[in-house]
Amino acid sequence: MTSEEESQRGKPKEIPHNEKLLSLKYESLDYDNIENQLFLEEERRMSYMSFRCLEISRWVVCGLIGFLTGLIACFIDIVVEELAGIKYQVVKENIDKFTEVGGLSISLILWAVLNSVFVMLGSIIVAFFEPIAAGSGIPQIKCYLNGVKIPRVVRLKTLLVKVCGVICSVVGGLAVGKEGPMIHSGAVVAAGVSQGRSTSLKRDFKMFEYFRRDTEKRDFVSAGAAAGVSAAFGAPVGGVLFSLEEGASFWNQMLTWRIFFASMISTFTLNFFLSIYNNNPGDLSNPGLINFGRFESESVAYNLYEIPLFIAMGAIGGLLGALFNILNYWLTIFRIRYVHRPCLQVMEAMLVAAVTATVSFTMIYFSNDCQPLGSEHSEEYPLQVHTRTHTPSTNFTYFSNGEYNSMATAFFNTPERSVRSLFHNQPRTYNPLTLGLFTLTYFFLACWTYGLAVSAGVFIPSLLIGAAWGRLCGILLASITSTGSIWADPGKYALIGAAAQLGGIVRMTLSLTVIMVEATGNVTYGLPIMLVLMTAKIVGDYFVEGLYDIHIKLQSVPFLHGEAPGTSHWLTAREVMSSPVTCLNRIEKVGTIVDTLSNTSTNHNGFPVVVQPAKLCGLILRSQLIVLLKHKVFVELARSRLTQRKLQLKDFRDAYPRFPPIQSIHVSQDERECMMDLTEFMNPTPYTVPQVELKEFKKKGFVVGLVTRKDLARYHLGKHGLEELQLAQT
Amino acid sequence: MTSEEESQRGKPKEIPHNEKLLSLKYESLDYDNIENQLFLEEERRMSYMSFRCLEISRWVVCGLIGFLTGLIACFIDIVVEELAGIKYQVVKENIDKFTEVGGLSISLILWAVLNSVFVMLGSIIVAFFEPIAAGSGIPQIKCYLNGVKIPRVVRLKTLLVKVCGVICSVVGGLAVGKEGPMIHSGAVVAAGVSQGRSTSLKRDFKMFEYFRRDTEKRDFVSAGAAAGVSAAFGAPVGGVLFSLEEGASFWNQMLTWRIFFASMISTFTLNFFLSIYNNNPGDLSNPGLINFGRFESESVAYNLYEIPLFIAMGAIGGLLGALFNILNYWLTIFRIRYVHRPCLQVMEAMLVAAVTATVSFTMIYFSNDCQPLGSEHSEEYPLQVHTRTHTPSTNFTYFSNGEYNSMATAFFNTPERSVRSLFHNQPRTYNPLTLGLFTLTYFFLACWTYGLAVSAGVFIPSLLIGAAWGRLCGILLASITSTGSIWADPGKYALIGAAAQLGGIVRMTLSLTVIMVEATGNVTYGLPIMLVLMTAKIVGDYFVEGLYDIHIKLQSVPFLHGEAPGTSHWLTAREVMSSPVTCLNRIEKVGTIVDTLSNTSTNHNGFPVVVQPAKLCGLILRSQLIVLLKHKVFVELARSRLTQRKLQLKDFRDAYPRFPPIQSIHVSQDERECMMDLTEFMNPTPYTVPQVELKEFKKKGFVVGLVTRKDLARYHLGKHGLEELQLAQT
Repeated sequence: MTSEEESQRGKPKEIPHNEKLLSLKYESLDYDNIENQLFLEEERRMSYMSFRCLEISRWVVCGLIGFLTGLIACFIDIVVEELAGIKYQVVKENIDKFTEVGGLSISLILWAVLNSVFVMLGSIIVAFFEPIAAGSGIPQIKCYLNGVKIPRVVRLKTLLVKVCGVICSVVGGLAVGKEGPMIHSGAVVAAGVSQGRSTSLKRDFKMFEYFRRDTEKRDFVSAGAAAGVSAAFGAPVGGVLFSLEEGASFWNQMLTWRIFFASMISTFTLNFFLSIYNNNPGDLSNPGLINFGRFESESVAYNLYEIPLFIAMGAIGGLLGALFNILNYWLTIFRIRYVHRPCLQVMEAMLVAAVTATVSFTMIYFSNDCQPLGSEHSEEYPLQVHTRTHTPSTNFTYFSNGEYNSMATAFFNTPERSVRSLFHNQPRTYNPLTLGLFTLTYFFLACWTYGLAVSAGVFIPSLLIGAAWGRLCGILLASITSTGSIWADPGKYALIGAAAQLGGIVRMTLSLTVIMVEATGNVTYGLPIMLVLMTAKIVGDYFVEGLYDIHIKLQSVPFLHGEAPGTSHWLTAREVMSSPVTCLNRIEKVGTIVDTLSNTSTNHNGFPVVVQPAKLCGLILRSQLIVLLKHKVFVELARSRLTQRKLQLKDFRDAYPRFPPIQSIHVSQDERECMMDLTEFMNPTPYTVPQVELKEFKKKGFVVGLVTRKDLARYHLGKHGLEELQLAQT
Repeated sequence: MTSEEESQRGKPKEIPHNEKLLSLKYESLDYDNIENQLFLEEERRMSYMSFRCLEISRWVVCGLIGFLTGLIACFIDIVVEELAGIKYQVVKENIDKFTEVGGLSISLILWAVLNSVFVMLGSIIVAFFEPIAAGSGIPQIKCYLNGVKIPRVVRLKTLLVKVCGVICSVVGGLAVGKEGPMIHSGAVVAAGVSQGRSTSLKRDFKMFEYFRRDTEKRDFVSAGAAAGVSAAFGAPVGGVLFSLEEGASFWNQMLTWRIFFASMISTFTLNFFLSIYNNNPGDLSNPGLINFGRFESESVAYNLYEIPLFIAMGAIGGLLGALFNILNYWLTIFRIRYVHRPCLQVMEAMLVAAVTATVSFTMIYFSNDCQPLGSEHSEEYPLQVHTRTHTPSTNFTYFSNGEYNSMATAFFNTPERSVRSLFHNQPRTYNPLTLGLFTLTYFFLACWTYGLAVSAGVFIPSLLIGAAWGRLCGILLASITSTGSIWADPGKYALIGAAAQLGGIVRMTLSLTVIMVEATGNVTYGLPIMLVLMTAKIVGDYFVEGLYDIHIKLQSVPFLHGEAPGTSHWLTAREVMSSPVTCLNRIEKVGTIVDTLSNTSTNHNGFPVVVQPAKLCGLILRSQLIVLLKHKVFVELARSRLTQRKLQLKDFRDAYPRFPPIQSIHVSQDERECMMDLTEFMNPTPYTVPQVELKEFKKKGFVVGLVTRKDLARYHLGKHGLEELQLAQT
């Protein structure tokens, strides 16, 4: 695998661009507990107290995960605030200076160059150092939680690149958010902390050794992802549901409870440190990086007859989301074909940054939507800062003092603040033309931006697009109905539009509803948001899959969906399984094992162990065999060297997770003739099914034995019923 | 089973009172999909469209469940409001009249008699007509979701008795809440609606026939329970988590999503109709029967150094909860031994009602805690009503006008309002002595009340006790610290105390946190509430189990906990399984089958089907065999009567869920010699495990084959390691 990684690092992005392929390069995580003799012996040796201690250390790890994830979120937020502040200050001063002498084009160039430089930095580290850190990381984490081993996805280096990358791209003024990457960051933190060592730093703290296996690690990564969601949106429950939605196959109460703990700690940590940063210590009322502000239920309650309107907006969101996804899909195909060299990727990112700055500048320049800068904003400190910051920019469209340009509120601002402003500003803050133009330009900018070689999320841009057209809907409705008293507040339509657009793009359902409700801080909107997300998903799914699923498919990952395709009931294990299968004898010649492992045409992860040709007695994993070969656990040697210590679980854990490839293990010709006894190490209870349906397997979430993950992922529901994908040796 | 039911209906409450026993009378639900040939054929016949339709009808059913559950909650709420209003009015007028002539004892008697009459009505219907409707119903629903078939728990009659019973006991002034029973009500609604027929009413609407099996039904019951929680506390997400915590073994995304939908609809329905009832249509801001009122984060934010205090309060809650549970445990044992006749139960309930009224009256009478009736309550309409209602009662302790008795606020009020008043009233509303006395008396009253033969929940009394001593803590803390500015609001301590007490009694964790957060409407309190609930659970578990678990154990239900006892890892299937096992041949003599089913010593629910003595080829259920016998599906008859139609899944569904007992099926001596071919009907893929650990089984949530539910439930973790329970033939 390391050799594969090497080759891949040299020429990144060489992924097959045909979504009808399934790559064979991805392996499954071993989510089944290997209950071999070694394991059972260890369990028997452990006292009740040791189980307790293990349980406590799980909690400690989850607490740490939450704490560190919160800290990272806090770090990103503060650095972005500071850098963006400096940037806006410089641009503002420049505009002030040049407005007088009439050379606004110089300001534009300054703005564009500043943005491009930031984006260039962010793009260089991503494209050259760690391509896996590109994008929001949500597709990758989805795959990991689904049980697919994505190379390098939870490494320390990925985290560093991710954090720096996201800071650069947000400060660079791209149409991106810093929320999505938090999920990936949380996952990396979890994978690191739970192992008690860092392979990158070559430090082993000799802690948490029990957790060094895929099962435990994946559980912690779930907690990390949840903590990330929680920090990003101030939505601890939403985080838990996100992890469950993406990763859970069994419901495990204690695990869920720990995940919840990590989420809570994460929100709390972020909250606590941000309150200190904001000189308001102890005020823990603003959880999350993005906060929708409080919707007072009294002021913006909805009525029963508005629900059909909301559903219609959900359908619009589904349509626009599908359009977004289709455009992005074409763009991604184009990128895979023609923009796969790192320097090209950096140049594309810089181009997007420059175009974004230019478009924003032009829109502000030509907009004549001036609004009085009244006291109505005084309660919202952050917005007012930026209203103030950009006030000079309104000068160049020659507004009188005390007025401001509402197009600038939407563009010359971090996306998070624009969203809040669209939700909460007074009814007449924006005029319809501004909103329409803004939606249009931002839609295409966001679509172009997603998939660039920068770390960035698509949540906030989606919300912003949706909030803009949602608010537009609200204003139009208010103008149609003459009474207009209950329509007076377009903020709630902005909220519904935001939910619809986000739902239409990412197609998450359960967790997204809860995240939106928690970010809104008002359970009253639960039902409308849910209905809107459902509608958006149904309408969107009619045309194309969700954005994350598209990207997962484009990388040919053998992803197993929670539900088996509806018509696959008649598909039995017999029909889907790979055959013939390479089996090993319980006492097998070393040579045979080495040959089996070296055979690249069948790089299975596990091999059935048999006693007679017909009788299955267990399952052994590739990684186990490699450790056995490395330690030369041969029957003959055991006899000759009686003093040799017995191999223990610890040896397997030490080798985890970067097992050497078979090529790096030297086996002499003499040793090839030795025998290996697999009895102690094989899993004696693999899942055996006399005759079973595909559905059954998917429930279990992991597949061992003769039916591999790829055998199942091969079947997907196309437009013409069940389709079978080709396997590619990439 | 019907005969068992009959016998049980005659002499209810004859349950073994030794918690070291496991009753054999409870059977498992068949949560495994029986994928026999009939089933596969049906699935193959179904088109993609039919799957779609099924899916849509599942959604429709969930929507209906939510709607009806919301309606029921609304009905209960309105009737309780109206009746309680009339009752308080009558008592108030009486006190007004008799205060002048000095005969307050007459008022007391009136109050006590009124309460007793209501409670008597509620108790009679429960004790004589449907004993299973007693209590909150949460233990029963927990068992059902755990996979235990509890007789009569989801019948229409149970629902009717439950609803009327809860109205009577709340109006009767008992220390109970109307929230717990909502969960049971929701479950019954779900079980009824999803089957498209009512066996009690003998009506079959010929709808939803596909759902007539345990798997589907249990899924809908989960949704119903969630809808119940959602309606009770305005906590849709909490409801979903409750259902998952209690019932889920596999994570099923679509199911969870449907459960969420039902919960949302339920809250919305309740909200909508209550807003009309309150002459405030369209204001959907008060979800749930109980609403904690909004905690404004600005006014009552907590600080980092308060967290240790909260944790200490959690420990107090755990201790008090354990005390409550132990007392209630003794009381329940006493009741099982001596108060098992219905008329005795009714009399006890009346006694409790009279004592509750007397104690309340005495406490109000002797209390001299008078507080000015200022404008500070004007924002809280419901409380003011009652402040007004009871104002006359303050007269008899000779307060001046414009003042009111704070003891009366706590006692002469529905518990829901008292809780809100403890959370939100101004700092000096209650004096410490009042709170202390109130806690003490209400603690014992609530403890005595739980387990009476009335429908009533323990949630609200627990919250009330906790809120009282929590507020007391807050006041004491404020008086200790001289600065007192941040301690000024004892409301947050009341909230923490309420969480601690409730957690200490019921020991729910994940779902309870979310329920509390949703009912509070403020995510800021998430972390403290979570820590408090965890502490309360840890401290409480050290002494005794949770209240619901105690009651489940006292009924000897074979309940499987989510986690296997820690030290049970070495327990293998071989050690726990029942043997010898009665196996059936694939083609078996009818006589053998009848004899096997009639054998009462092994009333297993499923029987392995074998071809040779050694080779397992499937599993067949008792209920299936009974249907086969009833339809006389004998090999010989099939040959002679070629025209006879083939048995279909429909025939099994029609018989579901009340399969006749084997005794009621007449099999002649000739027929005993016939043969039955089980091939088509058996489940060819039961779970087989070569050698497995106990843990594995519990994960799967259902147990078939040689290891039965009782074999697993027998092992429980006592103080001295793993203990084995005795099986009792009761």
